Amino acid sequence: MFTVKVNPRFGDIDILGHVNNTVFPAWFETARKPVMQIFDPELTLERNKFPLIMAHNDFDYISPVYFKFDVEIKTWISKIGTKSFTVYHEAWQEGKLCTKGNCVIVYIINGQTTPLPDDIKKILSEHTANCPASL
Amino acid sequence: MFTVKVNPRFGDIDILGHVNNTVFPAWFETARKPVMQIFDPELTLERNKFPLIMAHNDFDYISPVYFKFDVEIKTWISKIGTKSFTVYHEAWQEGKLCTKGNCVIVYIINGQTTPLPDDIKKILSEHTANCPASL
Amino acid sequence: MFTVKVNPRFGDIDILGHVNNTVFPAWFETARKPVMQIFDPELTLERNKFPLIMAHNDFDYISPVYFKFDVEIKTWISKIGTKSFTVYHEAWQEGKLCTKGNCVIVYIINGQTTPLPDDIKKILSEHTANCPASL
Amino acid sequence: MFTVKVNPRFGDIDILGHVNNTVFPAWFETARKPVMQIFDPELTLERNKFPLIMAHNDFDYISPVYFKFDVEIKTWISKIGTKSFTVYHEAWQEGKLCTKGNCVIVYIINGQTTPLPDDIKKILSEHTANCPASL
Repeated sequence: MFTVKVNPRFGDIDILGHVNNTVFPAWFETARKPVMQIFDPELTLERNKFPLIMAHNDFDYISPVYFKFDVEIKTWISKIGTKSFTVYHEAWQEGKLCTKGNCVIVYIINGQTTPLPDDIKKILSEHTANCPASL
Repeated sequence: MFTVKVNPRFGDIDILGHVNNTVFPAWFETARKPVMQIFDPELTLERNKFPLIMAHNDFDYISPVYFKFDVEIKTWISKIGTKSFTVYHEAWQEGKLCTKGNCVIVYIINGQTTPLPDDIKKILSEHTANCPASL
Repeated sequence: MFTVKVNPRFGDIDILGHVNNTVFPAWFETARKPVMQIFDPELTLERNKFPLIMAHNDFDYISPVYFKFDVEIKTWISKIGTKSFTVYHEAWQEGKLCTKGNCVIVYIINGQTTPLPDDIKKILSEHTANCPASL
Repeated sequence: MFTVKVNPRFGDIDILGHVNNTVFPAWFETARKPVMQIFDPELTLERNKFPLIMAHNDFDYISPVYFKFDVEIKTWISKIGTKSFTVYHEAWQEGKLCTKGNCVIVYIINGQTTPLPDDIKKILSEHTANCPASL
């Protein structure tokens, strides 16, 4: 499991007084920075080398997130396929699960879906333990 | 069906050269502006009156969206429940379906999930025809 | 002068009920899309070729922008220097000037500030007429 | 002086490989969270009570910000006026000043610009020391 903390921004809060749903994809993206680093250790993001494409993501909004307190994003690898893997995220604030979601990420080399290398699979598998997602 | 056009912004384009996945929730939100107007005709967004909460959304990324051309967002009401309804969106660029997704929106009055009024259901049902989503 | 219309998004509106100040840079960026096209006609954004870097921008918030109505962004070239030029933007809603601002953009080739070619200067100069900015 | 750290997000990086200029207003807004807390200690953001309106901001882009490393935002109060005050921000990455900027914030009560209370001025003045801005 990976964890990062994010600090809600004033502009993240919509007229309803809580974090707008459009904000969570960027929070979960931040939480995947260590996952990206498995593939691109120096995070140089060489345009023709960065090998990951988002194929699907989904979000369940369980409880509102407010401005005041930090939010902890917990991230697990929930499934390791042949040419893709699934990441599961949870956003917690003040001891409450607020938002959860999945994303399916495809491994692409030279524009082609490509089997995940075994050494990458091994590192990903170190982050599957105790994942609450039932996919 | 509702349609709106959006114009990709320079900052929407990520290092991979196409619109980043975090952008689509805001595009689809824009596409729901006429749906919001069914509930709040003057779009005054009175904080204690705006009756809609996002419960779930999901996105499938089928083909990249590029900077140059406008994107057409097509929006249908795909399901009308008792206290919630589902919206289905498609983003098209240059004749190609690029991204599609659903969102489940709950009707809330005074902080309580509340049955959708019949007149609202009737208006929503006018936007269900030919919806490609099979939910 | 260039003009584009933008449609405020639900998430653009902050708790004060009007468009948050962090939104305007992206609106003005959208308004500069035809300016970018002077330099990159096909808008392919080839990473090593796109020759423009933002050096400075500023914003004056004169009147709030609300959710309901489209906003018209008017854009002029207000100054043409040797290796840079200045763009002036105004955001209007319902006949009211709401936000205005400038940005200074530097011409960069191979990582070096470079004199603007004469043909580019000529095209830029076609968009200076009647610019309200006094820089 | 206040300091916060922000972690660049994948979507913050534009096609040029560094943080897009449209991102900095939100980063600086995050850095003002402790300033907001001087006015709204519980950060409840009561819509009719939150007393601050942005009148102006500006940004100078000195050096690119990259994806890999955290960015430290340093924030000072640079000027305390009668009904407004100015905040000065600097964004540093890996020991390098990358972006700096100012914002002028007006104190508004019941829709009227209002003199800043003396106790607020006193707290603001505790964050003026060693401010590098020469306004």
